Amino acid sequence: MSKKINTIGVLTSGGDAPGMNAAIRAVVRACSYYHLDCKGIYRGYQGLIEGDLETLNARSVRNIINKGGTFLKSTRSEEFRTKEGRAKAHEKLKQEGVDALVVIGGDGTFTGGKLFSEEFNFPVVGIPATIDNDINGTDYTLGYDTALNTVVEAIDKIRDTASSHNRLFLIEVMGRDAGDIALNSGIGAGAEEILIPEETAGVERMLESLHKSKKSGKTSSIIVVAEGEKSGKNIFELADFIHEQDEEYDIRVSVLGHIQRGGSPSCFDRVLASKLGVGAVEALMDGKSNVMIGIHHQKVDSVPLETALIGNPKVDKELRRVADITSV
Amino acid sequence: MSKKINTIGVLTSGGDAPGMNAAIRAVVRACSYYHLDCKGIYRGYQGLIEGDLETLNARSVRNIINKGGTFLKSTRSEEFRTKEGRAKAHEKLKQEGVDALVVIGGDGTFTGGKLFSEEFNFPVVGIPATIDNDINGTDYTLGYDTALNTVVEAIDKIRDTASSHNRLFLIEVMGRDAGDIALNSGIGAGAEEILIPEETAGVERMLESLHKSKKSGKTSSIIVVAEGEKSGKNIFELADFIHEQDEEYDIRVSVLGHIQRGGSPSCFDRVLASKLGVGAVEALMDGKSNVMIGIHHQKVDSVPLETALIGNPKVDKELRRVADITSV
Amino acid sequence: MSKKINTIGVLTSGGDAPGMNAAIRAVVRACSYYHLDCKGIYRGYQGLIEGDLETLNARSVRNIINKGGTFLKSTRSEEFRTKEGRAKAHEKLKQEGVDALVVIGGDGTFTGGKLFSEEFNFPVVGIPATIDNDINGTDYTLGYDTALNTVVEAIDKIRDTASSHNRLFLIEVMGRDAGDIALNSGIGAGAEEILIPEETAGVERMLESLHKSKKSGKTSSIIVVAEGEKSGKNIFELADFIHEQDEEYDIRVSVLGHIQRGGSPSCFDRVLASKLGVGAVEALMDGKSNVMIGIHHQKVDSVPLETALIGNPKVDKELRRVADITSV
Amino acid sequence: MSKKINTIGVLTSGGDAPGMNAAIRAVVRACSYYHLDCKGIYRGYQGLIEGDLETLNARSVRNIINKGGTFLKSTRSEEFRTKEGRAKAHEKLKQEGVDALVVIGGDGTFTGGKLFSEEFNFPVVGIPATIDNDINGTDYTLGYDTALNTVVEAIDKIRDTASSHNRLFLIEVMGRDAGDIALNSGIGAGAEEILIPEETAGVERMLESLHKSKKSGKTSSIIVVAEGEKSGKNIFELADFIHEQDEEYDIRVSVLGHIQRGGSPSCFDRVLASKLGVGAVEALMDGKSNVMIGIHHQKVDSVPLETALIGNPKVDKELRRVADITSV
Repeated sequence: MSKKINTIGVLTSGGDAPGMNAAIRAVVRACSYYHLDCKGIYRGYQGLIEGDLETLNARSVRNIINKGGTFLKSTRSEEFRTKEGRAKAHEKLKQEGVDALVVIGGDGTFTGGKLFSEEFNFPVVGIPATIDNDINGTDYTLGYDTALNTVVEAIDKIRDTASSHNRLFLIEVMGRDAGDIALNSGIGAGAEEILIPEETAGVERMLESLHKSKKSGKTSSIIVVAEGEKSGKNIFELADFIHEQDEEYDIRVSVLGHIQRGGSPSCFDRVLASKLGVGAVEALMDGKSNVMIGIHHQKVDSVPLETALIGNPKVDKELRRVADITSV
Repeated sequence: MSKKINTIGVLTSGGDAPGMNAAIRAVVRACSYYHLDCKGIYRGYQGLIEGDLETLNARSVRNIINKGGTFLKSTRSEEFRTKEGRAKAHEKLKQEGVDALVVIGGDGTFTGGKLFSEEFNFPVVGIPATIDNDINGTDYTLGYDTALNTVVEAIDKIRDTASSHNRLFLIEVMGRDAGDIALNSGIGAGAEEILIPEETAGVERMLESLHKSKKSGKTSSIIVVAEGEKSGKNIFELADFIHEQDEEYDIRVSVLGHIQRGGSPSCFDRVLASKLGVGAVEALMDGKSNVMIGIHHQKVDSVPLETALIGNPKVDKELRRVADITSV
Repeated sequence: MSKKINTIGVLTSGGDAPGMNAAIRAVVRACSYYHLDCKGIYRGYQGLIEGDLETLNARSVRNIINKGGTFLKSTRSEEFRTKEGRAKAHEKLKQEGVDALVVIGGDGTFTGGKLFSEEFNFPVVGIPATIDNDINGTDYTLGYDTALNTVVEAIDKIRDTASSHNRLFLIEVMGRDAGDIALNSGIGAGAEEILIPEETAGVERMLESLHKSKKSGKTSSIIVVAEGEKSGKNIFELADFIHEQDEEYDIRVSVLGHIQRGGSPSCFDRVLASKLGVGAVEALMDGKSNVMIGIHHQKVDSVPLETALIGNPKVDKELRRVADITSV
Repeated sequence: MSKKINTIGVLTSGGDAPGMNAAIRAVVRACSYYHLDCKGIYRGYQGLIEGDLETLNARSVRNIINKGGTFLKSTRSEEFRTKEGRAKAHEKLKQEGVDALVVIGGDGTFTGGKLFSEEFNFPVVGIPATIDNDINGTDYTLGYDTALNTVVEAIDKIRDTASSHNRLFLIEVMGRDAGDIALNSGIGAGAEEILIPEETAGVERMLESLHKSKKSGKTSSIIVVAEGEKSGKNIFELADFIHEQDEEYDIRVSVLGHIQRGGSPSCFDRVLASKLGVGAVEALMDGKSNVMIGIHHQKVDSVPLETALIGNPKVDKELRRVADITSV
């Protein structure tokens, strides 16, 4: 039988994502609502090992729902990957009277949380937060919607200059293993072609599509390229390769980079964070552990962390079809 | 048996919403992809009656995916409410060789489309576009996500000044019959209280919540009020009423108004518009008529226009609960 | 001879404006650079009377340059208008060892500062911060540039819906005595007509201009109205009045309101705030008092507070001319 | 004596900048106001040579004041650098009845315009438009203010993630020969250090400053680097170099790139464009030629193109001082 929970610890770990602050806020507020204590743990698992934590109350998290990043900060901890590191962390939690953990992050975060939960039979619930949307068992991860808006706003700006000069732009967006950002932002930005990690024939298709566009008189083009694109070429090599095929292209490369991780979260991400934060606390109160709280068909739901870690959902074929049709 | 479709007409009608241009673009591009002709009809049903239409091709809709409003313009047509008006419209469509219609708008648009489709056995497919998200049979309407972002960005700005002055702000957002905008933007903006049309006890609850906040030392507050709120008071009367209860409040009112209808659509709305536009053309090609193309559980789907017109979905009780918990 | 200054107090007072935080930061950082102590005074002159202040160092003001509002908060103080109130304030400053004051705000702030400085021979330097740009002796006030961007972005959104519906929009912007916001944002937003407090013939001219636009086939129009417009009608009465003249207009009113006071400051305001904050500390070190630090011809300069209080600069006739020509 | 001008041609050339559309609009509207004809020339001097131009009237330029880029498009023309090319251009202008030219762009544009004006005694007036603000004889160039806002907004986003991870970010901004963007955006974004082309000791100073920051416990840092920085290292080599000096830094590089050229112009740039566009037409009507219309001390003024071409204004020492003080 599960022990009654009095104090919940919350941390963020791995790459930061917009909405993390909103999720922390919801966890803290839900604790307050249910008369539980809440401790914020700084710098992820490393801060946990080092005992870098403090009590948070409803007012500690005022005016952070609209802030990007994570005020609890985030690191990757080598030490937590060792059994000794995790044992130290467990010791700290006992000392501090923390009965359960909410861990906010991506697959690295969940891998650590799962191990810890199993080794020490300690209640851990995960909240998926990564701009890549590459977590199994949830329709959306925190930060993904915001990142898409950041990307389309950036490409809208670049399209101004592309159109003014009749240029071809290659734009690299995040997504090492998952093409969700590239595919959605590519459709949203009206890209002429989209290269994603899940497809191998991308480059040939792109050349064909460029050729067709050129014949039809299209004078500027945007190609969105996921950083994990599988041609074996980086985006600068890709630009050179296109130029070799047809010298007439006036090509420019833009790597959007870290702006994609920051920024004030969209309303969607703030609401999602609020739902998941409340859901995580309620799951712990219900005795759940070793699960991730996700959103499925607009309902908050939990899946085992194991399921969350299965790996990337497949590329959305319908979306690829829509991309092909609307980029005619 | 349904007649083969060669030419599709597309129009926007009723209140405009961000994403309408992106939906028109997707309809035009899908027609182009499937080698159908496409005619854009200006000024909604009124333009249809007057024969104000022109052929659109893939290039006619370049660089509009990111534009707010609708380049086809939108009006409300009294004439189309009459049998004679609709007969004229039908005549025009025959003259122009248009075999099917895609109508983009809200319930007024669908009511007209349904009547027209039934009277003349004419293929009509609707695409839901209204910032209010008050259409049955689709999880989201076009423009809703963008409007939510516009609202939270506006409230973020107001929160700066509210916090600086320890003020109480009443902020009116759109939503005559549906509290979706108020509830979601209220959560997203971290509002202390949210008044929506679907609830009657709102004002008493608000007073209680304000009282509690004041005792706990909260010094500034944001109350989000849907324009259709049911207390019988408009927002200025509401401000006076609160002031009568407790003179210490330094109250300000802000009516966000029409900024909520405009602006560049969010990535979510652009992608949704692209999916629904393609879906509408494909539905017509499949012989469907008198249906709305919506999104349900992230899949494009069709429901009879009759279903779409049933009325507002109920308020989301889970969301109300999340609002109550996170505004502690 | 002026006493050596060791400790500077800084406060914000009156209506808040974007860039106040950036100015506080610059004052604090300049103190740190010159090895002076700096005390932040909360809630303006009222907080000063109540002794609500604390020491600030360079790190206290990290990550606030981009935040709207003022973290020191701002109030209007009735008590400081009395001799007794000011005497209490002076007593507090002596107790706390504060040798000089930087007061950030508009004319009310400067009136108080000037009185205080003269009564107690106490060094006071003002920094002009008000979105209205209505301070004499400086080309720009803090917050003005940001407010202009907020207004044009809001009108851009409204233009989307105005164009979609062929509507006439009356948009009220801030500016009780000064038409600078209306005139500049009106030009920037491409308004068809602009009504400002400094002109009396505005309404007649507007009607004429509307009439001309209508004849030339213009189908939607934006009229920007400063809140201090002098026709004796509020903006809703103005809308009714236009409608009485010509029933065909489909008119909507939008009062932009308090969104104009908030938001992340523009780069211009952040840089200006940094210059003025440094300038204020250096002026105090140079033995100046009873002056405002402003910007004139891109150079930081000081003028007597008396000069700053002379009243509104006149309306820029050249700008009015540009407005008339470009709204053809 | 100068010939009466009946028809003015307008073109944009060189790198595009936000505000070019607003300037074209103002030129067209001023022509309309003064009953002159106006012809828009596409693709800069190359389009002029090829006779790619059309008549523009007041309505042709509706709803473009808020659009980035240039709807007349811009190219660099090799042919116009030859005497033969310019002769062809002159021939076209005579054929089309164009009596005078407004050329919108940077130094390349003005060099061409000056030669052309002198060779054919043809009235030419320039409008400075380049995000780099590197034109002599005007306090501001079109697009500069917008680019600064784009840069600080991007760095604000990056600061979210930098703070969350205690990272050091090197951010490259535009400015091959002029550090204005770097210096202003660096101050505006609260950068810890700024490297500009006009200074040679930048790298040593940066290392010292980083060292100092680290000792004082600062845990994340933003370094803004102008692309023309003179250390002989590109930004990636600079990152490696810093890492060699101190392995503890967790360094990331972000090249902001072409987003800086696009985007909806700020209110400042829209108003400036309106003033300069009107000023250019009025200068031609006054018989001026071979001049640039600029802004000096908030007044529209003209200087010989020769003066404009003298080269970069020097780095603003006061601004550098403010940067040093506020980044303490």
